[in-house]
Amino acid sequence: MAELYKLSASEVVAKTRDGQLSVEEYAQSLLARIKERDPVVKGWAYINPDQVLSEARKLDQVPKESRGPLHGVAIAVKDVIYTKDMPTQFNSPLYKDDAPQVDAASIIILRKAGALILGKTTTTEFAATTKGPQTTNPHDSSRTPGGSSSGSGAVVGDFQAPIGLGTQTGGSTIRPASFNGIYGFKPTWNSISREGQKIFSLMLDTLGIYARTIADLNLLADVFALEDDEPPKISYTIQNGRFAVCKTMVWPEAGPGLVRAMDKAVELLRSSGATVDEVEFPKHLQDLPEWHSIVFNTDGRTAFLPEYRIDKSLIADQLVGHVENNLKISRAAQLKAFDDIAAARPVVDAMLAKYDAVLTPSVPDEAPLGIEATGSASFNKTWTALHVPVVNVPGFAGENGMPIGLSLVAPRYHDRKLLAVSEAVGELFEKSGGWK
Amino acid sequence: MAELYKLSASEVVAKTRDGQLSVEEYAQSLLARIKERDPVVKGWAYINPDQVLSEARKLDQVPKESRGPLHGVAIAVKDVIYTKDMPTQFNSPLYKDDAPQVDAASIIILRKAGALILGKTTTTEFAATTKGPQTTNPHDSSRTPGGSSSGSGAVVGDFQAPIGLGTQTGGSTIRPASFNGIYGFKPTWNSISREGQKIFSLMLDTLGIYARTIADLNLLADVFALEDDEPPKISYTIQNGRFAVCKTMVWPEAGPGLVRAMDKAVELLRSSGATVDEVEFPKHLQDLPEWHSIVFNTDGRTAFLPEYRIDKSLIADQLVGHVENNLKISRAAQLKAFDDIAAARPVVDAMLAKYDAVLTPSVPDEAPLGIEATGSASFNKTWTALHVPVVNVPGFAGENGMPIGLSLVAPRYHDRKLLAVSEAVGELFEKSGGWK
Repeated sequence: MAELYKLSASEVVAKTRDGQLSVEEYAQSLLARIKERDPVVKGWAYINPDQVLSEARKLDQVPKESRGPLHGVAIAVKDVIYTKDMPTQFNSPLYKDDAPQVDAASIIILRKAGALILGKTTTTEFAATTKGPQTTNPHDSSRTPGGSSSGSGAVVGDFQAPIGLGTQTGGSTIRPASFNGIYGFKPTWNSISREGQKIFSLMLDTLGIYARTIADLNLLADVFALEDDEPPKISYTIQNGRFAVCKTMVWPEAGPGLVRAMDKAVELLRSSGATVDEVEFPKHLQDLPEWHSIVFNTDGRTAFLPEYRIDKSLIADQLVGHVENNLKISRAAQLKAFDDIAAARPVVDAMLAKYDAVLTPSVPDEAPLGIEATGSASFNKTWTALHVPVVNVPGFAGENGMPIGLSLVAPRYHDRKLLAVSEAVGELFEKSGGWK
Repeated sequence: MAELYKLSASEVVAKTRDGQLSVEEYAQSLLARIKERDPVVKGWAYINPDQVLSEARKLDQVPKESRGPLHGVAIAVKDVIYTKDMPTQFNSPLYKDDAPQVDAASIIILRKAGALILGKTTTTEFAATTKGPQTTNPHDSSRTPGGSSSGSGAVVGDFQAPIGLGTQTGGSTIRPASFNGIYGFKPTWNSISREGQKIFSLMLDTLGIYARTIADLNLLADVFALEDDEPPKISYTIQNGRFAVCKTMVWPEAGPGLVRAMDKAVELLRSSGATVDEVEFPKHLQDLPEWHSIVFNTDGRTAFLPEYRIDKSLIADQLVGHVENNLKISRAAQLKAFDDIAAARPVVDAMLAKYDAVLTPSVPDEAPLGIEATGSASFNKTWTALHVPVVNVPGFAGENGMPIGLSLVAPRYHDRKLLAVSEAVGELFEKSGGWK
């Protein structure tokens, strides 16, 4: 029983729902793991062991017939998602001792399903800058775990929690998933309510979920009522599958680790009996990354006005720049980018719909050295703007033995199909991709 | 000094900033007005006179040189917008004794500008149903004040507050403005942060503002940093102005009061030296109201899942229907509506850009009898979906002497220009439209 902290969420549910395992016992194991590892990984912005144990004991008191589908599953929550019993601080001094006392929609749903909210995880300031918190990569503490969902990515990668919540406005869920060697799932935009999650950009912000298995992501997808028009086949097999690679317009940023991972992935899929085409964004959509940047910057003008007004000396220069529109982006340019992205969505959906899933980079390479910067979102931002579901599938390794994942993408509201395909692909990549 | 409660926000600022009038004295006058009128109008969901007076005294202590641009301006806040010192209840039993303790972005900005938050005003359940609260129309208590921003519209119309905050997802700001004989302003979507305002639909929800003068709306627009690419001329004159009437695809719903108001408005504009064309939505956009309904219904599927999970027996059947997707709207249909609206936005912006402003109905007719239903949003929902700024300009009367307003609309992010035009048009309509 020493390694209960290693259980997946699905295993925890199987063991706690009928009383084979108490939630308290499971929580004790996680807390011991956290105690041991937190001095190095530093993934938590707030965790109170007494509170965790008290909540665990309450869950143990729930009659068996009333236990929810996530009974006892421990969840790490990015510190931009409101929790009424734990302070939400956004890595900003502005909300010190003045945290929102309300549960986010996602937290309400998770608690109601029986989840154990473990604590709050580190983030870049308001999940809106690239300056990292003190969190380190669990596989090499001299490297970044990525951001802005730094803590959730790191603690799930480090077996301190089976599930983590992140958010993504640029690449904040998928990038840390790749750097920490775990699955990251950015569902279709607005398929999960983002009520109670600090707004950066209404059109881009998406709740993200971390896990170490696709089964766990499916469990969460059930709880969040994610439904495609057509439920996917129970078991997807790669043989005779149809894939494509989309290197995207930012492929020149690819490092050697990514290039090798992509080549290896294509080879693995083909040798498993799938076809793998290559697709490219049409010429008129080559500026999608730039359009994303325009929306990103101009939405910050609205989003951070309250903090700017409270005390602009206490927010990052980058955010002051958003509010003051330092880039001098006109409303006309803002609307053009907003409308051009909107027009691109159905076009790209149609492009993706021809395949079981499309393989695309998650990151330029393995996690870079240093924790000051959290890495590049270049390969993520276009997919964020397009609202499509994305799964980071781990399995590959870079030149320094650090994990590299690849993204699978599908058309909007094909989340369950994407998870089904990702399960088979993940099994293949994890077995033969070269990283363990 | 007996009628201080009748002051506009701009007058309050002029008198309180340099100490001619104390905020406490002003608050006393409003509270007396509320005490007298609330038994009939019933516009408040929460108001605590002691708290109001205590806040007023705090504002009076602020040194003159530190007073903000809204110093002492009393604001009525729709009860779906979070206030940390007053319970937010959404006209739902679910949040009783469990209100979010956090200020919405709009409230942070208003407080920082020196506003006096008076209390919370009534709403339909989560601003998402058409079943009215107990609030009555201040001009005829047998009639609805409209909804969902019922209380804010009624109390501003009744001189219980100079400024009210509402929200609009269908017609929830503009309809009550028309029914209560006041100005209502729905700014460009996302030009004011909607952080801390209950989400119904991310793509539709917009913060709205009520006032009795355009000068007051301009004051608020300054505080919320609304900026067009080109600042409008200081003083707009109707002579030689270019207007158009857009009766919209739902004109068959127009009642006699609306028909007469539109005719009269065109006559007034023409006799003031403006040209008035007639514009129509192009054929391929005739389904905009239907597309709005699809987005409205499917976004509710995501938005109300938390409340549904807490206790579906305690939320309106209409909201249960959203979550359960009773209308069986497919994801494909949802996306098509979402994308078709997005494609319409630049087309309609171009149509509107040819004019100083376009005149369009706010409501089918004057406020209907009864308070059970809050009236029709037919004439509002298309503009909400299009994200354009809308101002309800009062001035006309229906067959029963109740107020009827008309909407002026402009392209996205032409909010300041629209306010400038609305000021001149409002002066004309209020003087010669027939309602006082």
